[in-house]
Amino acid sequence: MSRPRATIVVTGSELVRGDRQDRNGPFLASEVVRLGLDPDRIVIVGDAPDDLGPVLAAALESDLCLVSGGLGPTHDDRTVEMVARAAGRELHVDEGLETEIAAISRMVAERLGRPYSDFEDGVRKQATLPDGAVSLGLAGTAPGLVLDANGCVVVILPGPPRELQRLWPRALETERVRAVLARAPAVRRRVLRFFGTPESAVATALADAGGDGDGVEVTICAREFEIHVDLVAEPGAEARTDSIASTLRSALGRHLFAEDERTVAEIVLDLCRELGLTLATAESCTGGLVSSRLTAVPGSSEVFVGGVVAYADDVKRAGLGVPDALLEEHGAVSAEVAQAMAQGVRERLGADVGVAVTGVAGPEGGTPEKPVGLVFVHAAGPDGEEARRTELPGDREMVRGRATAAALHLARKLLQTRHTDE
Amino acid sequence: MSRPRATIVVTGSELVRGDRQDRNGPFLASEVVRLGLDPDRIVIVGDAPDDLGPVLAAALESDLCLVSGGLGPTHDDRTVEMVARAAGRELHVDEGLETEIAAISRMVAERLGRPYSDFEDGVRKQATLPDGAVSLGLAGTAPGLVLDANGCVVVILPGPPRELQRLWPRALETERVRAVLARAPAVRRRVLRFFGTPESAVATALADAGGDGDGVEVTICAREFEIHVDLVAEPGAEARTDSIASTLRSALGRHLFAEDERTVAEIVLDLCRELGLTLATAESCTGGLVSSRLTAVPGSSEVFVGGVVAYADDVKRAGLGVPDALLEEHGAVSAEVAQAMAQGVRERLGADVGVAVTGVAGPEGGTPEKPVGLVFVHAAGPDGEEARRTELPGDREMVRGRATAAALHLARKLLQTRHTDE
Repeated sequence: MSRPRATIVVTGSELVRGDRQDRNGPFLASEVVRLGLDPDRIVIVGDAPDDLGPVLAAALESDLCLVSGGLGPTHDDRTVEMVARAAGRELHVDEGLETEIAAISRMVAERLGRPYSDFEDGVRKQATLPDGAVSLGLAGTAPGLVLDANGCVVVILPGPPRELQRLWPRALETERVRAVLARAPAVRRRVLRFFGTPESAVATALADAGGDGDGVEVTICAREFEIHVDLVAEPGAEARTDSIASTLRSALGRHLFAEDERTVAEIVLDLCRELGLTLATAESCTGGLVSSRLTAVPGSSEVFVGGVVAYADDVKRAGLGVPDALLEEHGAVSAEVAQAMAQGVRERLGADVGVAVTGVAGPEGGTPEKPVGLVFVHAAGPDGEEARRTELPGDREMVRGRATAAALHLARKLLQTRHTDE
Repeated sequence: MSRPRATIVVTGSELVRGDRQDRNGPFLASEVVRLGLDPDRIVIVGDAPDDLGPVLAAALESDLCLVSGGLGPTHDDRTVEMVARAAGRELHVDEGLETEIAAISRMVAERLGRPYSDFEDGVRKQATLPDGAVSLGLAGTAPGLVLDANGCVVVILPGPPRELQRLWPRALETERVRAVLARAPAVRRRVLRFFGTPESAVATALADAGGDGDGVEVTICAREFEIHVDLVAEPGAEARTDSIASTLRSALGRHLFAEDERTVAEIVLDLCRELGLTLATAESCTGGLVSSRLTAVPGSSEVFVGGVVAYADDVKRAGLGVPDALLEEHGAVSAEVAQAMAQGVRERLGADVGVAVTGVAGPEGGTPEKPVGLVFVHAAGPDGEEARRTELPGDREMVRGRATAAALHLARKLLQTRHTDE
């Protein structure tokens, strides 16, 4: 049974000019893969009619066409108009939708202290739909749309990733999209997530397990400095999927940290909750990335009390009680100072568990003894500690991101050990 | 004089399935923009001939076609073969190239302890070029190539971003690519960045200025909760660009915060540097996002001393010295506590300027008096303060992101006022 094909069209001049990296294409692609469809291409195109027109025309030859962006109120947001043209549909203003968008725009106008008249044209534009299109409701002031274009189901979603991801599930509930999905073979999906092992080691283990195929599709991908393995099984291939999973488990068990979709931040917070422990962070080179990852999780305030970003040494001393002697003897980037930061934040913020990071993010500040990328992470709990020294590759952003992952995974390790001890 | 068009084709099954984010498309796109060309689309496509073939055929209608990936030694690396087919070229083995690649492969074989015969087919494949193609030299064992396909100059580059970026400058030195670049008019680009005004208000102002066209291309895009306006002027249209810019300036001057590419974090740090002031943050609902945005900037340690993430009220008291009375009387989410946090972090961390955020990020914790999205930001300096109360729309991530932007822009406002006073 062959899979329906999905073509993804991402519009936005700033994207096709490389000013910003597109996140919608990869998101929608992995979604359609998860749903058992075949993504054939992702096209990133500007909103000039001469560019967008031919791309949309070609995309409508697919079974499912997902279009993102160009739904804003401004002159260069042409997606709806261009899709209508490609599908041979007239446009009309949806009164109900216009009222809905107007209500929101009035609030925004008030908040910004602008006359509503500034918004009127934009509201009318955003309430204009191709004949036969179904609204998915609003994200911001832009509606998502679904329509049938001579056999191709077209889903139009707003460009801001968060808004797109909020409306996407609603598209999956529409009759038209459900009809396309019904033509895809039912698949069962399972995930294995590893940390601290290279992608190639996972690939080798997979090869030892016989590789994919025979109804099992395996994708190995590096994300958030972790290796995520997705196993998608077609009906009848469940047993083979299980054997691949167990081979990977026995080959790389040490590095396996999850068999579900939870992020490491969620896992750390859940472990703290289960153990009845509170958590605090002490960060130097990551500058607040660890605490922002933790506090991104709803309900994190139940266990996360706070953190100290100790960028200057004075703050390491005054804010975390790191002894002068330690800083002088070992330097701010050292195992000793990482430990003192973790212990200090536990004490100063009255938390059960303290997680600390100190390192050289670069591009400046590296020395032969302490090169850019050298990072020390430390986790201190009520009855145990974990420490790690690592040299991380990449530029400043990479080093900070990898160091954040290292800190969160060290905390997970400390808590999981304690968890299994109990 | 119209700009030559460039089409970018990025191959790779893991990319079209969303397993990994493509970095080559954005890199090549910003390069061609920098060189005065018009990138019309970036196509991410798998290496199956049925998918790749039509995409390449369409791409060869452009003036410049940049292809990345699919140059490996294995059977599913089909880029060279498919480009040759699309260009109607025969393939031949380049003896010199074969010797070059063989030498490297022999070293690899030795290191891995494999017989060279394992590599022989791959070497021959990687040394196979379309007739008339020029090699750019090797990255790894794959050569970059340039060829002329009936008027379209095709550049083929390896998929690994580092290798692609190393060979790209060599492509720019080839006669064929230079000839395309010579046809590009010099464009002048200018940017205007606004905060606190809706996209539609900018669109209205642009319409009042006569809109774009006539050699001026205007892109309005909402990014990081700011509105970024890009003006690209072709030769002769500079005057019109200036008049559009000044219309926008006079209509929305209050909200204009930059006419360059600097982020608000960079602007805040630069202002501190110019004024000889140090900076510290006190964050509740943003949980470290403000400090992580600041420390993402290289050299931020010169002015940013650190921050306190005061999530629990105890940390607001102990870490920032927020008086009990204030917390009891006004609650943690209040103008009074925001001010106390900003003043507290100045004092505790010994910084000249303190920036504080407190609010309800949601999804839980909202009340009729203090709904989800209610945020107070406060900036306190050596001789002045700025405060703002705002109700932000969106989910937890949106509210946190908007609150972070609000805090950084409030700090900028405080510092700019002081700056102009001097």
